[in-house]
Amino acid sequence: MYSFMNDYNEGAHPKVLKKLEETNLLQLDGYGEDVYCRDAAQLIKGAAGSKNAAVHFIPGGTQTNLIAVSAFLRPHEAVISAQTGHVEVHETGAIEATGHKIITVDTPDGKLDAKLVQPTLDFHSNEHMVKPRMVYISNTTEVGTHYTKTELEELSSFCRSKGLLLYLDGARLGSALTVDGCTLSIKDIAQLTDAFYIGGTKTGALLGEALVIMNDALKSDFRFMIKQRGGMLAKGRVLGLQFLALFEDGLYFELAAHANETADILRKGIAKLGFKFASDSVSNQLFPIFPAELCDKLRKRFDFMQGPPGKRNGDRKDGDIVGDA
Amino acid sequence: MYSFMNDYNEGAHPKVLKKLEETNLLQLDGYGEDVYCRDAAQLIKGAAGSKNAAVHFIPGGTQTNLIAVSAFLRPHEAVISAQTGHVEVHETGAIEATGHKIITVDTPDGKLDAKLVQPTLDFHSNEHMVKPRMVYISNTTEVGTHYTKTELEELSSFCRSKGLLLYLDGARLGSALTVDGCTLSIKDIAQLTDAFYIGGTKTGALLGEALVIMNDALKSDFRFMIKQRGGMLAKGRVLGLQFLALFEDGLYFELAAHANETADILRKGIAKLGFKFASDSVSNQLFPIFPAELCDKLRKRFDFMQGPPGKRNGDRKDGDIVGDA
Amino acid sequence: MYSFMNDYNEGAHPKVLKKLEETNLLQLDGYGEDVYCRDAAQLIKGAAGSKNAAVHFIPGGTQTNLIAVSAFLRPHEAVISAQTGHVEVHETGAIEATGHKIITVDTPDGKLDAKLVQPTLDFHSNEHMVKPRMVYISNTTEVGTHYTKTELEELSSFCRSKGLLLYLDGARLGSALTVDGCTLSIKDIAQLTDAFYIGGTKTGALLGEALVIMNDALKSDFRFMIKQRGGMLAKGRVLGLQFLALFEDGLYFELAAHANETADILRKGIAKLGFKFASDSVSNQLFPIFPAELCDKLRKRFDFMQGPPGKRNGDRKDGDIVGDA
Amino acid sequence: MYSFMNDYNEGAHPKVLKKLEETNLLQLDGYGEDVYCRDAAQLIKGAAGSKNAAVHFIPGGTQTNLIAVSAFLRPHEAVISAQTGHVEVHETGAIEATGHKIITVDTPDGKLDAKLVQPTLDFHSNEHMVKPRMVYISNTTEVGTHYTKTELEELSSFCRSKGLLLYLDGARLGSALTVDGCTLSIKDIAQLTDAFYIGGTKTGALLGEALVIMNDALKSDFRFMIKQRGGMLAKGRVLGLQFLALFEDGLYFELAAHANETADILRKGIAKLGFKFASDSVSNQLFPIFPAELCDKLRKRFDFMQGPPGKRNGDRKDGDIVGDA
Repeated sequence: MYSFMNDYNEGAHPKVLKKLEETNLLQLDGYGEDVYCRDAAQLIKGAAGSKNAAVHFIPGGTQTNLIAVSAFLRPHEAVISAQTGHVEVHETGAIEATGHKIITVDTPDGKLDAKLVQPTLDFHSNEHMVKPRMVYISNTTEVGTHYTKTELEELSSFCRSKGLLLYLDGARLGSALTVDGCTLSIKDIAQLTDAFYIGGTKTGALLGEALVIMNDALKSDFRFMIKQRGGMLAKGRVLGLQFLALFEDGLYFELAAHANETADILRKGIAKLGFKFASDSVSNQLFPIFPAELCDKLRKRFDFMQGPPGKRNGDRKDGDIVGDA
Repeated sequence: MYSFMNDYNEGAHPKVLKKLEETNLLQLDGYGEDVYCRDAAQLIKGAAGSKNAAVHFIPGGTQTNLIAVSAFLRPHEAVISAQTGHVEVHETGAIEATGHKIITVDTPDGKLDAKLVQPTLDFHSNEHMVKPRMVYISNTTEVGTHYTKTELEELSSFCRSKGLLLYLDGARLGSALTVDGCTLSIKDIAQLTDAFYIGGTKTGALLGEALVIMNDALKSDFRFMIKQRGGMLAKGRVLGLQFLALFEDGLYFELAAHANETADILRKGIAKLGFKFASDSVSNQLFPIFPAELCDKLRKRFDFMQGPPGKRNGDRKDGDIVGDA
Repeated sequence: MYSFMNDYNEGAHPKVLKKLEETNLLQLDGYGEDVYCRDAAQLIKGAAGSKNAAVHFIPGGTQTNLIAVSAFLRPHEAVISAQTGHVEVHETGAIEATGHKIITVDTPDGKLDAKLVQPTLDFHSNEHMVKPRMVYISNTTEVGTHYTKTELEELSSFCRSKGLLLYLDGARLGSALTVDGCTLSIKDIAQLTDAFYIGGTKTGALLGEALVIMNDALKSDFRFMIKQRGGMLAKGRVLGLQFLALFEDGLYFELAAHANETADILRKGIAKLGFKFASDSVSNQLFPIFPAELCDKLRKRFDFMQGPPGKRNGDRKDGDIVGDA
Repeated sequence: MYSFMNDYNEGAHPKVLKKLEETNLLQLDGYGEDVYCRDAAQLIKGAAGSKNAAVHFIPGGTQTNLIAVSAFLRPHEAVISAQTGHVEVHETGAIEATGHKIITVDTPDGKLDAKLVQPTLDFHSNEHMVKPRMVYISNTTEVGTHYTKTELEELSSFCRSKGLLLYLDGARLGSALTVDGCTLSIKDIAQLTDAFYIGGTKTGALLGEALVIMNDALKSDFRFMIKQRGGMLAKGRVLGLQFLALFEDGLYFELAAHANETADILRKGIAKLGFKFASDSVSNQLFPIFPAELCDKLRKRFDFMQGPPGKRNGDRKDGDIVGDA
């Protein structure tokens, strides 16, 4: 039985586990203040090209998003997200549970740009409505598409001109950065966003996301926020060590590139057979549209997800294979 | 200068003020436990045809909605609302500020029915998404349309079959109940919903809404909720007395009918002149579509609101006159 | 039957009601943007000696407190209050419901000073604890005591040196400002605090408190906050008009002084009879300690509150008369 | 340099890491629905003596507490905790951030009993105050004391008679259950509480706590709550596998007993030297009171925490050694 289910159905990369073993008997400071967390943060600051970046390790993606949003926004400020955004669809109302509204925008491909965001700004004109304050994007997106460097530059420039924070959910950032021909780097993202996170869980770690805060105004007291929301592990080393393993020798990018490449083989094979895809995914999330009978047959030999991810009123007549939700 | 702005640009009906004066020197229990609050509640229970209804007086509509939603729902439970719903558009994220997500549904006319709600239920299938739990409707709606008795019966029946609470925002309930030919009564609404409120502010009161909770499971400890959210006036008499004035002689329905009738004159006149309306409003909210130049001319002699209420991406080229937002 | 229950068992001062009547037929802007709200705000700015003060009218005291705290503080920031503080004891967790912790301090007399607050600052040393950020005081306090000008100056100076906001709950501010020999003025309070509110409900109004924000950093977008928490009345005139009546001819201070004076007669009479008081109240809240049998007798001719207000583990053996809770 | 800092300055027990390695290449269901989570839950249900117990694995203790409290309580319901309780002192207001007040009780030894809790029930008499609903205890407590079986039986019986939920924070449950002469078992705790958690982080795991919900009324939709608060790891296996290692051969109890025994050697040695302790700790948290100069000397050869944990206004003149905060 082959599984095409999810990155998180796998364990960790062996080097990640090895790092945990090698250091297991050391006594280290708790709560993310150990030397390995510092070293991993150093590597990420290097990748971001900024000594002043604030780097925090947090167990999961939903948690990272909810801590960041609730730390960055005042109570009446809202998040703008694609209708397909993870915060909107697949976080059980985690953002709203911290008190903030998400304003959704319909998009053709899971991506936001100035033209798509502007009407939301026009509409929210006074104190009887929330105040749009943060643009939330994912890269790669929930439907597998990615932002080019130019697209991100334009969106960043738009956000800055409108007083909007730009936050990038990088649960699949590795995939986005190793797309064939993509010139976007972590350094670029650091310069173009106010904060972003580098996803560990989907790229070789057991758990862990690295939040990088670039905007100085958003940095103060952030550890209070992590602790208050339950995201501060007592043995914080667990997170730092994994990111150390992923970033000290470029393993993070290797793994992401490998996932993209093997997905590409699958993508090309499916296309060759004449099937279409629900989205133009560049990541290892593939959304081929198969007839229902074929799905039934495939299910006997393969595990995969079926049904429309992140879409309301999804038509299930044909069935999509989805790589991840 | 004539004003066609809003119900709340007016003061109170004189009988309402008179009631406050007549009783002004009496010493009464505070916090809504005085005899007039009890009497007013009695009258409303009578109108609802239920001795067991729980009636609470609350200063404003947004406050009533946020207290009800946060009292009735568990943290992961969400509200389903029309995209045009007041809770979605014009409450500055008040519902989300209590931790609950609003799931919006596009509607042709501001009204929800089983067919429109069902896809939301289908989509929200597991613990990675919020759990739809309450259907929020307004009557009349934010675009001036209203529910017939049959429509409300069908929606109520659907909600009950699906385990959904049905909550009716009656900021303009008077208007809805006095629509020409409408057979819907407060008694019907009481039987068909889990809770609803009777709007005082837009029908003759200075302030005040009467929340009526019909579902026994939602009644317990409700006064704690009102107090916690800041909705319990120390001199609660102010609210009870006004509702007494409105309900002891049918004044509430008189005022609403009068507003509908005068709006109807205006509606017919505008239609006769060949203008169309953005919605099929039956209330005193009218949404005629006028050319921009005409709007400019009218503005010299009349006060009115301009622009699309409760609609995103509203095209302002032609200009709508709106009676209320 | 005489009642010594509560200020809020009474109606409004006749001049307050008269103001509502006189203006009742006027069409005015909604949501607190009418000319009377502006005029009343002007008068209060005058009293505060500051054109830049931001004045907002809000229906009730608990609501004012919860809106202010949630608007002023970031999620991890906490309020320091006397153990007897209204926010701690009598608001059904309204502050916590907005996400903020209250740190309590035991006091001999309901009042805070530098010495009492400092240990809380010492104790809260890192991100595993909340960050004390606002000092909440009431004047007069919940046990009827009051701050002298010197005491408030010292506390203000301490707060500023420690980066703490100073917020004054003035539900009974009139009483505090008209205490015999007291030199404290609204102007002083405006200069010494970051924000405070002037209580209308307990001094002649039907409802309504006037929040005055002095610290520029706390002013932005405040109307969003009022709306989001349900505190923005559609017919905002109701609040503005009442404060106009109270402040245009000094009625507010007249009423407060009268209440103090009549309470003083009662206080002296009780003292003359040899009874002691649970607190050194200067307001019309009196806390005489009577034997239980006397309470039973008094109850036949007088209404009053019995039992220890704002005190945990209160010993009810003897019974206190309390003027207000 | 010897460290007497904290359990969480250590790594994991080797058997725990080994379990992660052995299973690393398997493809397993995500989000805690894998076979190892099920097996570990099975073992814990066995220990609890109940097939119907609901077992959930959550990354950390603060997170477990905040998820449980916010899932179990309605908005106006409050937690009763010892003043020294972890939720009160060392969680950065995590409970309040979910909207709930904590009512604190001063205790001589960090433990609650009926007599200590009753006054809080007496005091909270109406809707102007929060409603006490859950009693939060820790075992061992934050000052190292523990509950005997009889004490827990009495507290449980009291809570049930008063309609209070009893929740036990078991961050150091292993220590409590292996105290010399203690007859309390997980089975007892399961029968006597509504919910409790078994702490993994401080007893051999890298991270992870096992929440056990016994009260049927509290079980429904709990996975929604975990997800909404960011506590659901995508690779949930990480938690299940560790608890499997800890519970399949009694490792959990071995490790806890070992910690207690070695602490006992230290405790007896210190006592022999004539020093007193700030609390009567039975766990590996020791609170000896040393003169400041001795602390300075010891610091050259040993790492340890200094200063009063969980106590306000702590006098630092003498210095306490504390084993954990």
